[in-house]
Order: sequence, then structure tokens, then C-alpha cells
Amino acid sequence: MNETIDLLNNHRSVRRFGPDPIPDEHVRIAVEAGQRASTSSAVQAYSLLRVTDAEERRALVELTGGQPQVADAGAFFIVCGDARRHRLLLEQDHRDYTAGLEGFLVSVIDATLFAQNTVIAFESMGYGVCYIGGLRNDLAAVDALLDLPDGLYPLYGLCVGVPAEPPADAAPRPRLPMEAVLCEGRFPVDTAVLQRVAEYDRGYEAYLRDRSGGKKPAGPAWSDRMRDIHGAPRRPNLAEYYASKGAELG
Amino acid sequence: MNETIDLLNNHRSVRRFGPDPIPDEHVRIAVEAGQRASTSSAVQAYSLLRVTDAEERRALVELTGGQPQVADAGAFFIVCGDARRHRLLLEQDHRDYTAGLEGFLVSVIDATLFAQNTVIAFESMGYGVCYIGGLRNDLAAVDALLDLPDGLYPLYGLCVGVPAEPPADAAPRPRLPMEAVLCEGRFPVDTAVLQRVAEYDRGYEAYLRDRSGGKKPAGPAWSDRMRDIHGAPRRPNLAEYYASKGAELG
Repeated sequence: MNETIDLLNNHRSVRRFGPDPIPDEHVRIAVEAGQRASTSSAVQAYSLLRVTDAEERRALVELTGGQPQVADAGAFFIVCGDARRHRLLLEQDHRDYTAGLEGFLVSVIDATLFAQNTVIAFESMGYGVCYIGGLRNDLAAVDALLDLPDGLYPLYGLCVGVPAEPPADAAPRPRLPMEAVLCEGRFPVDTAVLQRVAEYDRGYEAYLRDRSGGKKPAGPAWSDRMRDIHGAPRRPNLAEYYASKGAELG
Repeated sequence: MNETIDLLNNHRSVRRFGPDPIPDEHVRIAVEAGQRASTSSAVQAYSLLRVTDAEERRALVELTGGQPQVADAGAFFIVCGDARRHRLLLEQDHRDYTAGLEGFLVSVIDATLFAQNTVIAFESMGYGVCYIGGLRNDLAAVDALLDLPDGLYPLYGLCVGVPAEPPADAAPRPRLPMEAVLCEGRFPVDTAVLQRVAEYDRGYEAYLRDRSGGKKPAGPAWSDRMRDIHGAPRRPNLAEYYASKGAELG
């Protein structure tokens, strides 16, 4: 269709990076494009922390569940919700920050619109990227490591760098059938949803089989994986942590 | 730098649309590009509802605070967090959904990565877009209007269409200085943050003055606007609504 849509469709998470650093100028170009993303009433409730200390990056490998790319990528960033600016402005007026769940939600949405624009800009310059949700494994430890001020709370990490190898020829990981995600007028009934999921499971199994060259047993189908993820409490300290940073979840 | 970065930098929210509809093929191209965005462990915790009934779209104009583009744009979508698929899979196993705040957070992040890719794809095809946060003014009413099933909860709306007029020549709304948003190693101290904000206020006032042709008094500076937004509870029923749909905020 066009160059931009081709870029979006060719996205793969990159987890192995070469040693090349990223010129500051490229970081600035990507962040500038990030800042042009939509933001609710211009609140811009986000900040990006670039972790520059090699020892801190090694510590973050462990804190994110052992992901070596957190230390190896050309750059590692932490995308944060940022209510600090708004809090400081209210303090100047001797008023309280009372933005509630709306404030937290806007910070997550704004930060993610910003992050995705930044990612696309990096990818358009030939870099590979990888979001690091594992950063939420132990946010209190991340916070202590990086001396995060009140009002700033990490949402996820972001590795950026020159890919160590060209993208695999293999098909990208399949997504849900479009009909499961794009609905016209009304959402479908439960049985129709489960039918789409069953269809997807078959394609997902084939993908896992292909990816292993047919040698290894196929991993769990998507449905089983989803039951594992959503059927047991994950990262149960998140709410406590975010509240400790002044985010309001109620 | 390149075509994609130019596109990101030229983004403006479009609020006046021509009557042209959007071919279904273009919607599918944009949503496909959206689905290629990163998703945490492939959970894909989102769905997109296209509101097709003209009367429902008129009702949504009122429910979003009187935004006529919700009815006038070529298409109006609602971006939803979607925990329904995961819940139904667990129910098949007689198990409970217990993903907690992590599950809700992932749905907001996944949905927004998806939405922003979709938006960029639409813009690359020449369409204009506008996110509608005002959809959160009264989510219970939106829910009743559109018969939303359990596990599906709206995050924001999205207008897409052919712009009624070429983009204004005026400069785009300024963003915070990059130094306020991109930090190296450590976040700055409070006084440095407020200094950047004061600098931004001056540029923001100049922008408002220019936009009004110097005739109207400048609107409130950014700081005052932020105090208004974050110093009074907004959309206080959000937490109750999301909990009623099965989202877990604790």
C-alpha cells in the first residue's frame, strides 16, 4: 500500500542486538516524533528515562526476569507515567492532585501513544525494538535502583538497537483473525468468540510447529497459554506500588 | 528524515470531516497494521467496535460532550479493552479470571499500541483522525447504548475520515521541551522540572495568541489548564464502571 504500512506490517520484536550505539541525534528524532502523538488535553503525562549506567542495566536484566537484551541493546529506556509535573503545579497553588483513575488511565494511554510513535520512528530508521513488560516484575526494586521521584512510575521498558541478525524469513507470529478484533455495530455472542479462538489456535499451533522446524513438540496453544496467564494472579504488588507513587486507582 | 517520520511529525487531530465514507478495504488495511503492533505475551487484550447506526452515533455526540465529529466522520470506532476471550477460555475450564491490575494495565497498553498503529496506517492513506477521550464521560450510558458484553470495556473513541479542509498552515500545538520528557540516567530535581514548565508556558501562550490572530485574549497557559484538569475529580465513576465489567484494579 505504502512505505509506512509496509513498515508496520513488517514489525518483529528484536531480542538480539549488535554492539553499535545509537547516535543521540537519532534518539532525538524518534522522541520528537513520539511527542507529536495525540495527548489528552495536551497533558503529556509521560516521561522517558534512558538508563545509561552499564551496571544498572545489568541489574535490570535480572529484575526483568533475565532478558539479556536489556543490557545488550544499543539503548534501554523506561517508559513512565508522569503525574509529577501536574502535582508540582498544584503544590505551587497549595492544592491537591485529585485526578483519580482518569488521571492514571490518561497517563498510560498518553505514554503508550508516545512510545509507539517513538518505536515506529526508530524502526523507520532501521533499528529494532523490543518492549519489556517484565519490568513490572518488581517495580519497587526498579524504583529504588533508579531513585524515581514521586509521581513518576514505570510502565514498561524499551530496548532499541541495531539487530544482530537480519529478520527471520519465517512468518511473523499470527494474530487473532480480524473478525475477532474488528466488530460492526455489536459484539458477537460468546459461542462465536470461542469459534474464532479455536480457529486461531489451529493457526497458532502450526506457527509454533513451523518455527521449531517440526522437531520440538509444539508449545501450548494460544488458549492454554491465555488460561495460564489470566488464571493466576500476576505481579500482585502493582497496585500497591503505583499507589505509593501517588497514582490513584479508584 | 523519511516518509514515515514526516507523517508522524505532521499529525494534527482532525475534527471536521467531509461526507465521504471509508471503503471497507481501507479499514481492513489499517486494522491489519494495528494488529501487527507488539502485544504482551500475544494476549491481544483489545477489540474495536465500529458504530454503524446513525442514530447511535448521534446519541454518542451527546454522550461525548457534544462533539459533532462523532456523527460526521467517515467512521466512528470505539477502542475497547477486551478480557472477554480470556474469561471465556477460563470458564471452559471452570476457572476464574484473576489477572488483577496487571491484566487491566496490559489491556490498556495493548489496545493503545494497536490503536496508534491503526491511526498511523489511516493517516498514511490520507485520512484524518481524532481520539475521543470524552467517551469516558458516561461509560455506563455508552455501554447500555451498545449492549457491551461482560469483559469488554471502552477506553476511548476514534473518528476517522476525509478531512473537510486541508490542514491549517499554523504551527502545530507545541509540546513540552524534549528535555522535560527525555531524561538521561536520573530524573531532574523539582525546580528543574518547574523551570522547563515555565519555559513551555511562554511558548504555549504565544501559540494560543497566534492561533487567535492576536485578537482574542490568550487562553489559560498550560500550567493553569493542568491545575484545572488535575485538581478536581474527573469522571469519578470510571473505577466503578470498569469493575462492573470485570476489570480488576487492585
